[in-house]
Amino acid sequence: MSVNLEQLAQLLGPKGILLDDDVKARPNYAWGQGSCPARAIIRPSSTEALADAMAMCYDAHQTMVPWGGLTGLVNGMTCSEQDIAISLERMNGIDSFDTDAGIMVVNAGTPLQVVQDAAREQGWLFPVDLGARGTATIGGMISTNAGGNSVIRYGMMRNQVLGIEAVLPDGRIIDAMNEMLKNNTGYDLKQLLIGAEGTLGIVTKAVLKLQPAPLRTFTAMVVCDNFDGVKTLLKSASTQLASSLTAFEAMWGNYYDLNVAETGRHQAVLPPHQAFYILLESSHSQVTETNPLETFLEAQLESAVISDAVIANSEQQADQLWAIRDDVEAKMIFRSPAISYDISLPLRHMQAYTEQLEQALANFDPDVKCVTFGHLGDGNIHLGIGPLSDKKAVNDIVYNLLTQFKGSVSAEHGIGLDKKSYLNLCRTEAEIHVMKSIKTAIDPRGLMNPGKIFA
Amino acid sequence: MSVNLEQLAQLLGPKGILLDDDVKARPNYAWGQGSCPARAIIRPSSTEALADAMAMCYDAHQTMVPWGGLTGLVNGMTCSEQDIAISLERMNGIDSFDTDAGIMVVNAGTPLQVVQDAAREQGWLFPVDLGARGTATIGGMISTNAGGNSVIRYGMMRNQVLGIEAVLPDGRIIDAMNEMLKNNTGYDLKQLLIGAEGTLGIVTKAVLKLQPAPLRTFTAMVVCDNFDGVKTLLKSASTQLASSLTAFEAMWGNYYDLNVAETGRHQAVLPPHQAFYILLESSHSQVTETNPLETFLEAQLESAVISDAVIANSEQQADQLWAIRDDVEAKMIFRSPAISYDISLPLRHMQAYTEQLEQALANFDPDVKCVTFGHLGDGNIHLGIGPLSDKKAVNDIVYNLLTQFKGSVSAEHGIGLDKKSYLNLCRTEAEIHVMKSIKTAIDPRGLMNPGKIFA
Repeated sequence: MSVNLEQLAQLLGPKGILLDDDVKARPNYAWGQGSCPARAIIRPSSTEALADAMAMCYDAHQTMVPWGGLTGLVNGMTCSEQDIAISLERMNGIDSFDTDAGIMVVNAGTPLQVVQDAAREQGWLFPVDLGARGTATIGGMISTNAGGNSVIRYGMMRNQVLGIEAVLPDGRIIDAMNEMLKNNTGYDLKQLLIGAEGTLGIVTKAVLKLQPAPLRTFTAMVVCDNFDGVKTLLKSASTQLASSLTAFEAMWGNYYDLNVAETGRHQAVLPPHQAFYILLESSHSQVTETNPLETFLEAQLESAVISDAVIANSEQQADQLWAIRDDVEAKMIFRSPAISYDISLPLRHMQAYTEQLEQALANFDPDVKCVTFGHLGDGNIHLGIGPLSDKKAVNDIVYNLLTQFKGSVSAEHGIGLDKKSYLNLCRTEAEIHVMKSIKTAIDPRGLMNPGKIFA
Repeated sequence: MSVNLEQLAQLLGPKGILLDDDVKARPNYAWGQGSCPARAIIRPSSTEALADAMAMCYDAHQTMVPWGGLTGLVNGMTCSEQDIAISLERMNGIDSFDTDAGIMVVNAGTPLQVVQDAAREQGWLFPVDLGARGTATIGGMISTNAGGNSVIRYGMMRNQVLGIEAVLPDGRIIDAMNEMLKNNTGYDLKQLLIGAEGTLGIVTKAVLKLQPAPLRTFTAMVVCDNFDGVKTLLKSASTQLASSLTAFEAMWGNYYDLNVAETGRHQAVLPPHQAFYILLESSHSQVTETNPLETFLEAQLESAVISDAVIANSEQQADQLWAIRDDVEAKMIFRSPAISYDISLPLRHMQAYTEQLEQALANFDPDVKCVTFGHLGDGNIHLGIGPLSDKKAVNDIVYNLLTQFKGSVSAEHGIGLDKKSYLNLCRTEAEIHVMKSIKTAIDPRGLMNPGKIFA
């Protein structure tokens, strides 16, 4: 049930394996917490070396935990003492970039920011963006189907990937480095590996489709006095700004008030104590004489869909607006000990859910407060709840209520270890059974990222 | 190995099963050819009835062939004498339409055009479009991951589907009617069923994400004197027209000349005997005073990327330009007996492939001619080759040459029966092995659409 470490070391060379203190120096949980208890961390330098190492592990019934940049938030990378961690940190860099077609071939260990920068230099955009861009790797982002702020326009990681190379648990290499937008030849295996959180194999390379970089971006923050206004604004923005709408981020008043008025961490660009604050961004590939976002918002003000607005007239001002939205730490500090949630539900149920949740939390403990914000255009909200005495009780309140509204316990973060006991709240028994059949078909010995996703 | 037809009839009622002449009256091959030899055609009226019927078939080891609108082109619906065909023609209609969110829930037997029309009435667009729109069903289009003319802007069928309901071979119902853009909770099973050509189960319902309907559409046809010009034009259009570019359809001179000059089926909107004719369409959600496509093309004329252009100044003129592109019958009539191919390959190899193919065909038979056209912006071209004496020899020439350029033997039509002996030219042995493992995991008795996709 465990691979011979000396044989692994011989196969991979001195740089290819970390042992003892070098292992313990690495974290075992999200946010860099804990100390990795794994038997070893292997760091192959090529797909072939990885495949050989995985074949050796497979033969020895050795469990394997794949590692990207370790920026995930659901402990999908946590190891036990029996595991071997597999880091792709030495398999990084861009293999090729077809600047005519906007197609980039990258190794899975490449950090997001390297891809973004290389694209930008040639007039292209890699549109998935995360706060952890300097550390999160393309392979990890594929394995977790990462989201972010621009999903409303460009989709999630899944939508950026034309092809992948991956190594299966038994060391077989799957070369599916398709470059075409259209390729209807049998099952689309990459779709299965995208979002599988490393439980079916390890993605080693990817063919990424880039987007034309917009020439100009406009940013604004507005106030809606009620949720009907938010919904009207979203529909109008979706249809009138259409594909130029690149962000529609909502902050409930409780989030804005915490980040701005209560903590003074940000300047009050709009008066506090309003119902909803919406950050809108529109991006354009053609030069326009007017600001299309301003024209749009003037009409919304006139028809009283919004009651106030501030339009950024410099990049610095746009950054200031985004900083209020992106300051996710305030809730962790000022509501400590707090939990951050990542859920999604149909927009038409959003108001009922958040209102019933606040009521349920008040009934549970009047001192507990909830702040709400997120990618409303995608039906994805984040909740910050604290201070908490009983984490499990609050998990149960948040997730059980969600089932009434056909919501999801994970919009973009995945399941990992943290949410596996709630998977059955948003996937049926039949679905989970089929997932497990697929898992067994591809990983019959259950060696890949054991204990993740499934309870 | 065969289900009791009387029991099936009892389960489904008199409207639920067709026998004998009613079966023979249905086709067995693409283009309405042949006579269906199946034991029976069942037509359940609900998911539950279908599930009960499939469970009965499963218990009896009865093979099943799912039917959509029978507009597929690779004989994915062909039955043998042992099979039961399953038609979803009675499971049609729109269940619900959230006109705020642009989300429509439809039964799988609903024809595409019904969905398109319902969307349009509410200011929304269902962006996948096919010539067979009156007959092709949403379920069939999901099972074949249908493409069409707007893939460059909106993606294939896969990109329009948020959730599905499906029945597995053993009659289990998979309810994955997700409505959210973001739902990272375990394997995304719908991705596996999309494009599986009915070999893993039958899609019964879908949640479709609609797009805002553009307010204005502009259309033009231009001439490029060489393929470098075509590539430059595509890159410029992709980056400058960006998301307003809704079609980039190419006709090699041989296709335009056949449809216009040789057969006189269409008026010569541009002079014949040029190298490449490109049909461009741009769609806009905001009213513009100028025609952005015209502005763009003027710059391309000035920089000699294109040498001639005609811009439609009425819907009728736009239809006239599209009619030349869409007249795919001319090649079947005037090169008869001819074959139509659907392939894709990276744009950077397109010129070398088409030139080497023409040479190979000339060497094979100087009388055989090839016309070339297609969705160039997606790397997807169609070939019309004829007159043919030896179909297999020409298949071999077309497909074998493709492997040198990492191309695909099916861009949008699928594999079905027709292309299964070429699947190994564009998917590796390891990929096909994994596909078969998944097939076995979900359909262990091999009852669903037997003999399709895999040789």
